[in-house]
Amino acid sequence: MNLREYTNAMLPAIENKLQHFVDRLDEPRVRAFRDMLTYHMGWTGEAAGPEAQGKRIRPLLTLLTTAACGKPWEPTLAAAAAIELIHNFSLVHDDIQDDSDLRRGRPTVWKKWEMPQAINVGDMLFILAQAAIVEIGQDHSADTALQASKIIQNACIALSSGQYLDISYETRNDLGIEDYWPMVSGKTAALLAACTQVGALLGGADERDQEIWHNFGHYLGLAFQVQDDYLGIWGDSALTGKSNESDLVAGKKSLPVLFGLGKGGAFAKRWAEGSVKADEVGPLAEQLTQEGARLYTQQTADQMTDLALQNLRLAAPKGEAVFELTQLLLRRQA
Amino acid sequence: MNLREYTNAMLPAIENKLQHFVDRLDEPRVRAFRDMLTYHMGWTGEAAGPEAQGKRIRPLLTLLTTAACGKPWEPTLAAAAAIELIHNFSLVHDDIQDDSDLRRGRPTVWKKWEMPQAINVGDMLFILAQAAIVEIGQDHSADTALQASKIIQNACIALSSGQYLDISYETRNDLGIEDYWPMVSGKTAALLAACTQVGALLGGADERDQEIWHNFGHYLGLAFQVQDDYLGIWGDSALTGKSNESDLVAGKKSLPVLFGLGKGGAFAKRWAEGSVKADEVGPLAEQLTQEGARLYTQQTADQMTDLALQNLRLAAPKGEAVFELTQLLLRRQA
Repeated sequence: MNLREYTNAMLPAIENKLQHFVDRLDEPRVRAFRDMLTYHMGWTGEAAGPEAQGKRIRPLLTLLTTAACGKPWEPTLAAAAAIELIHNFSLVHDDIQDDSDLRRGRPTVWKKWEMPQAINVGDMLFILAQAAIVEIGQDHSADTALQASKIIQNACIALSSGQYLDISYETRNDLGIEDYWPMVSGKTAALLAACTQVGALLGGADERDQEIWHNFGHYLGLAFQVQDDYLGIWGDSALTGKSNESDLVAGKKSLPVLFGLGKGGAFAKRWAEGSVKADEVGPLAEQLTQEGARLYTQQTADQMTDLALQNLRLAAPKGEAVFELTQLLLRRQA
Repeated sequence: MNLREYTNAMLPAIENKLQHFVDRLDEPRVRAFRDMLTYHMGWTGEAAGPEAQGKRIRPLLTLLTTAACGKPWEPTLAAAAAIELIHNFSLVHDDIQDDSDLRRGRPTVWKKWEMPQAINVGDMLFILAQAAIVEIGQDHSADTALQASKIIQNACIALSSGQYLDISYETRNDLGIEDYWPMVSGKTAALLAACTQVGALLGGADERDQEIWHNFGHYLGLAFQVQDDYLGIWGDSALTGKSNESDLVAGKKSLPVLFGLGKGGAFAKRWAEGSVKADEVGPLAEQLTQEGARLYTQQTADQMTDLALQNLRLAAPKGEAVFELTQLLLRRQA
């Protein structure tokens, strides 16, 4: 089966399973609370639909991993839903922490219902993720469910640690590229590594194979993030037309920026002087290129992509659908 | 063994176990993050010590329940720590949501480190609670650990739902006593019911006995909350001297207030006109008394206490230490 055939079957099953856990809020009194969760999940409210739901990359990756291990993917649905709920919990809290008005083109939860309820929406999504983890035990042994839980909880510790670093970097300029990896390993790679490791665990992989799958997810996450960071400065929409989509305007401590800060040259000097205006985006991106940040970022993206693919080839020589998803994630251009 | 003998042994073991999970943050880079958690737990920073740690009622209750079931309490420590971490996660987020400056006499986490990091501190405490739940499987079967997880996750769903109701009530005046129970069942009783049910599960109690223990914890929580609500209006520190400690000034939708709002009399009329000043506390409390709220609250506290004790007598005819703790919790006067 190719990726499209898989996703056609998996995506509706993922939405069903997610809905099943959000349906745990079935008391009429908490109806308006439930509406906040279903709005964030992209099912209800203005502009609800596939666009608002996001791509469900994480649950897809989890299910595809189990399938690549030669096992049916349906018994992995509870774990896949758990990870997607955790991802969404982190988005809801992230939007509050970053003061973001929009998520997937729609007003964020805190913008619509204010900060106190938005904190609670994130908390509830995380709680429902734990309820989903318990349900892994319905299709697998309790021991396997507990192993999956351990993998996921470790990823969450890394996720929250990465979030701490990200927030703490906002007010620091004494940073370099060595500060990049601990942050993105936590913020981006940890949860993707949990997807592939849990997918492999529930696909019956032994510990050694689980580790290879874990490494694939880890490097996939890093490659994706580095490429995202590249596009955030040199991508079409960052450079032309919508300059305020540039990571330079957002002040994001991405890999090229940390590279430039570490160099301590003209870029670092300008950065220290305060926020970047839209009309500076072009010249400042060019400055970063001259200091070597563009080449370094490209090479790093290639390196992480190679590491991801090496591990994937080891883990699943015939896992074509996972290769397709990987290529889709790592070959986008804007 | 009496309560004092038990607590002398249990309290240090609880602190050790809690520390064990917070120690999961062992990367030097997240040292300052770890410090935020240890500050909130009362171990470090200004005025650290027993006062700042709180009474650890929930883990004590969990351990005492296992002991009352005739089993050693040490293998229940991971579960007890999990519940205490969940309680503290809810406090950190509650303080942000309520805009509270002080917790146990010290500046709250968000006051010290601002809102974005405080959200993350609460998240991490909840994540560590999940790591603690996984460790229940070290001293018990994976199946039992998963059952404990299910009980705890259900309590968390109720906790977060109760929190939603509490926040939503702030802007509503169309409320009555029927709106009280769903809120406090979630906010206060659910976690205490999880303490006793999980303590009983790990103490080897069968399902029927677990349910009795659950009911004991539930009514203990309700009795405690109703008494707290009573003292918040007619307690010594609320009525005399520190009038701004009155729930009337805080605008809290406690049982007597909801009773008064439901009556729709002079109290409800005054309440609808806006926040209560310190010098109105005496007359307004008297007004509530005249409308019957004081008697109703006292009778309700007695009723909940009776229900708690009935269940406790059924569950543990000889559980003297649990009786002592219950009396300690329900017979405080100010």
